[in-house]
Amino acid sequence: MPGKVKGRKARWSVKPSDMANNTFNPIRAIVDSMKVKPNPDKTMISLSIGDPTVFGNLPTDPEVTQAMKDALDSGKYNGYAPSIGYLSSREEVASYYHCPEAPLEAKDVILTSGCSQAIELCLAVLANPGQNILVPRPGFSLYRTLAESMGIEVKLYNLLPEKSWEIDLKQLESLIDEKTACLIVNNPSNPCGSVFSRSHLQKILAVAARQCVPILADEIYGDMVFSGSKFEPLATLSSNVPILSCGGLAKRWLVPGWRLGWILIHDRRDIFGNEIRDGLVKLSQRILGPCTIVQGALKSILRRTPQEFYHDTLSFLKSNADLCYGALAAIPGLRPVRPSGAMYLMVRMRVAATWVEIEMEHFPEFENDVEFTERLVAEQSVHCLPATCFEYPNFFRVVITVPEVMMLEACSRIQEFCEQHYHCAEGSPEECDK
Amino acid sequence: MPGKVKGRKARWSVKPSDMANNTFNPIRAIVDSMKVKPNPDKTMISLSIGDPTVFGNLPTDPEVTQAMKDALDSGKYNGYAPSIGYLSSREEVASYYHCPEAPLEAKDVILTSGCSQAIELCLAVLANPGQNILVPRPGFSLYRTLAESMGIEVKLYNLLPEKSWEIDLKQLESLIDEKTACLIVNNPSNPCGSVFSRSHLQKILAVAARQCVPILADEIYGDMVFSGSKFEPLATLSSNVPILSCGGLAKRWLVPGWRLGWILIHDRRDIFGNEIRDGLVKLSQRILGPCTIVQGALKSILRRTPQEFYHDTLSFLKSNADLCYGALAAIPGLRPVRPSGAMYLMVRMRVAATWVEIEMEHFPEFENDVEFTERLVAEQSVHCLPATCFEYPNFFRVVITVPEVMMLEACSRIQEFCEQHYHCAEGSPEECDK
Repeated sequence: MPGKVKGRKARWSVKPSDMANNTFNPIRAIVDSMKVKPNPDKTMISLSIGDPTVFGNLPTDPEVTQAMKDALDSGKYNGYAPSIGYLSSREEVASYYHCPEAPLEAKDVILTSGCSQAIELCLAVLANPGQNILVPRPGFSLYRTLAESMGIEVKLYNLLPEKSWEIDLKQLESLIDEKTACLIVNNPSNPCGSVFSRSHLQKILAVAARQCVPILADEIYGDMVFSGSKFEPLATLSSNVPILSCGGLAKRWLVPGWRLGWILIHDRRDIFGNEIRDGLVKLSQRILGPCTIVQGALKSILRRTPQEFYHDTLSFLKSNADLCYGALAAIPGLRPVRPSGAMYLMVRMRVAATWVEIEMEHFPEFENDVEFTERLVAEQSVHCLPATCFEYPNFFRVVITVPEVMMLEACSRIQEFCEQHYHCAEGSPEECDK
Repeated sequence: MPGKVKGRKARWSVKPSDMANNTFNPIRAIVDSMKVKPNPDKTMISLSIGDPTVFGNLPTDPEVTQAMKDALDSGKYNGYAPSIGYLSSREEVASYYHCPEAPLEAKDVILTSGCSQAIELCLAVLANPGQNILVPRPGFSLYRTLAESMGIEVKLYNLLPEKSWEIDLKQLESLIDEKTACLIVNNPSNPCGSVFSRSHLQKILAVAARQCVPILADEIYGDMVFSGSKFEPLATLSSNVPILSCGGLAKRWLVPGWRLGWILIHDRRDIFGNEIRDGLVKLSQRILGPCTIVQGALKSILRRTPQEFYHDTLSFLKSNADLCYGALAAIPGLRPVRPSGAMYLMVRMRVAATWVEIEMEHFPEFENDVEFTERLVAEQSVHCLPATCFEYPNFFRVVITVPEVMMLEACSRIQEFCEQHYHCAEGSPEECDK
C-alpha cells in the first residue's frame, strides 16, 4: 500500500457541485414535498401538469405521426446531424416563420433538444455568472432554474392581473442596470394564458431599445390563441432590438416529449453579430442537438399538418376554458382572472391553463395556496398547481386540456371543497352573500 | 426620450458569455480551418466522421425501426416523460446491463439526450469550476470541450501505443491532487480502438481506490469488440470505487442521431449517496431528457434486436479493419498501430476507426499531421482526421465503417500520396528500403 502523498485525498468524499446544488426546480420541490394522499373514495383528477397529451383526448395529427414513419423508413436520418440541426430542417423552420417584417433564413435557426434547451442556450450565450436577467412574475419556473444553475441573478418584474397580465413597464425599467444581460418576454404567457396586444409589445420593445437590453422571447405558445385575439411575434414589431425567439413542436403539435425546439435569431441591426451566433453554435456542440428522426420529419410536419387540426385543438380548449371559467367564477372565495370584456376571456385563457385567485381571507384554515391545493388533493383528489410555484402566492393554476367530463367533475369537486371551507371574512359580512 | 440613468447601458454591446467563449471543439476548429478544396478529378472519400450511418451500408436493424413505429402508433409516448426518463424504459436498461457483479435497478439509470449529455451531467455533478478531471491522451475531444466550458481544468494522462494503448498508470497517479474530481476511463477507446484487459482495468481501479477518485466510465463502445477480445464493464470489477458509466444506443444500434444515452450509477459502497443521485436528477431537469418516442421504443430495441445484427456489424467491421490495416502497413512512412499478436489486431481495432502513425521524418514537406491530412484532401480527395484533434500529433485516424470498395480505393489513394511525398530520412537510409 503506497503511502499517502501530501495534498491528495485521504478518504472518500464525493459531493455534488455547486451547479447541481443550485439547480432548483420549484415545481418539483413544492409538488414533491406535498406528502398528502388523495381521497381513496374519489378517482384522482390531475389538473397540474402542463402536458396536453396525458389524457389521450388530444392526440397529435396523423400527418405528424406519418411524417415520423417516413423519416424512419427513409433510413436517411439515423446518423449525426450538425449540432445546430440539418440545414434542410432549419430551412423549413425559417420559411415557416419568415415574414417580411422579420425575415429568416436557415442561418438564423438553431434546432435544440426542446424549447428548454433553446432557453438554456440563449441564457448561456448572453449572460455570465454575476449578471442578471429580467424574468416575469408570475412566470415559468424554468427561467429561474436555468439562470441560478449558471450563477445568473434573477430579477422579477411584475405582471399586472388587473391589466390582463400586462407588464408593469415602469417597475421593469427600474430593475435594469449595467449587469442586465437580457429581458425574458413570455408571450403568450405560461402560466397566465395572456396574450399581449401589439401596442403593449411595442412599449416593451421601447424599454429594451432605450436600455440596450436584448430580448429572449419565449414564444412556445405562439399561434395558440383563441379566435378573437391575435399573437404577434415580437420580432415582427422591431427593427432594432436584437431578439432570440424560442419555440418548438411541443404545444402546437401536441408532442412535448419529442424534444424538438428552436431558436430564431432576429438581429437586423447586427447587434448580436457573428459573435453571439458563433457562441450559440459552439454551445450547441456540447450535446449535439435534437433527435434526427424528428428533424427529418419536420418538413412534412410543418407543411402537411391540416389547418383543421390546429383549429380543432383550439376550439376544444376554448370550450373547456369557458366551461372552467364559468364554473369557477360561481364559487364563493375563488376568483378566476376576470375578463374585462367578452373578447378578453379569449385573450386571457391560453391553451394549457387558467388561473384562479384564492381569496385567502375566506379560507382561514389554510395558510396559503400550497396548503389549499394540498387539502384539495386530500379531500377531493383534485390536483392543481399552487401558484407559489410561479412566485405568485394565493393563486392556483388549472390545466384545461383534460376531457370535458373530467373538467366538469373537477369543477364540481372544487366547488364542494370551497363550500365546505368557506368562511365569511371578518369585517366584510356582505361578502358572504356572494 | 427619458434621460439615461446612472449605471445603465448607454449603447448596445452584446457579447457572448465566457462559457460560450470557452466552449471549444478542437475537431470543429481544426477541420473548419482546413480551407483546402478536394481534388476535382477524384470523388471525395471521407474517412473522418465517426458516424457509421453516412454511407448507407450499415443500416440499423428492421426491429429497431419497427419498435419506433410501434411507439408512434401507440400514441402513448408524445407527452412529457420524467426528466430522467420513463420508469419502464429505465427498468429495461437496468435489466439489460444488470449482472451479479454490478447489479442495477431502474433507480440507478438516468436517460439522457445522447451519450454527450450523459457525460455532461456526470461532469456537471462531480466537478466545480477550479477542480480538475483526468482525461486520456489521445482521447475523445468532447471531454475537454465540456470541462473547459464549465471552468473545470483538464489534466491529460497518457495512453501508451507500445502497450496497446494502456494507461501510463504511474503518470496518471502523479496527476491526482486534492482538486481532482474524477477520472475519465474510455473503454473501448475512441479514437484508439483499444480494449483494456481485465487486469489493466483492475489496476486502474486500484489507483482510483487508493486516491479516492470516482470514475466516469465512457463505455459507449461497450460490446463493440471483435471476436477474440472481451469487453468488461468497469463496474463489474470493483465493489468499492463509485462509477458513473455512460452509454447509449448510438454505436451498437447504429443510430447516433437519435440521441438516446444513459448514465448507469454504480455505487455499492454508497459513496455517491443520495446527494450525487439527487444532483443528477436536478441537473436532468434543466432540459428534460431524450425524445420520448425513442424511450418508448427502448424495450423492443433491447429485447428484439437479433444477435445476427450485432454479429454482422462486427464481422463487417473486422473485415474492413483487417483490410485497412494490411493496406496501410505496407505503405512506407505510415505505421498503423502494430499488433503484438494475432489476437491484438482484434483488440486494437475498434468499430469506428483505426489509428495510423505518420513517420514525419519521411515527409519533410509537411509541418505536421494537420498539413499531411490537408494535402491528402487537396490531392487525393481523401479526408482523414489529424490526431492533433485528439491531442496526439503525428497520427491520423481512419474511420473503417465505409463500404469495402471505398475502403480499398481510399487505401490505394493514401498509398499513391505517400509514395509521391516519401523522402528518406537523413541518417537512416536503411528505412528507405521498407
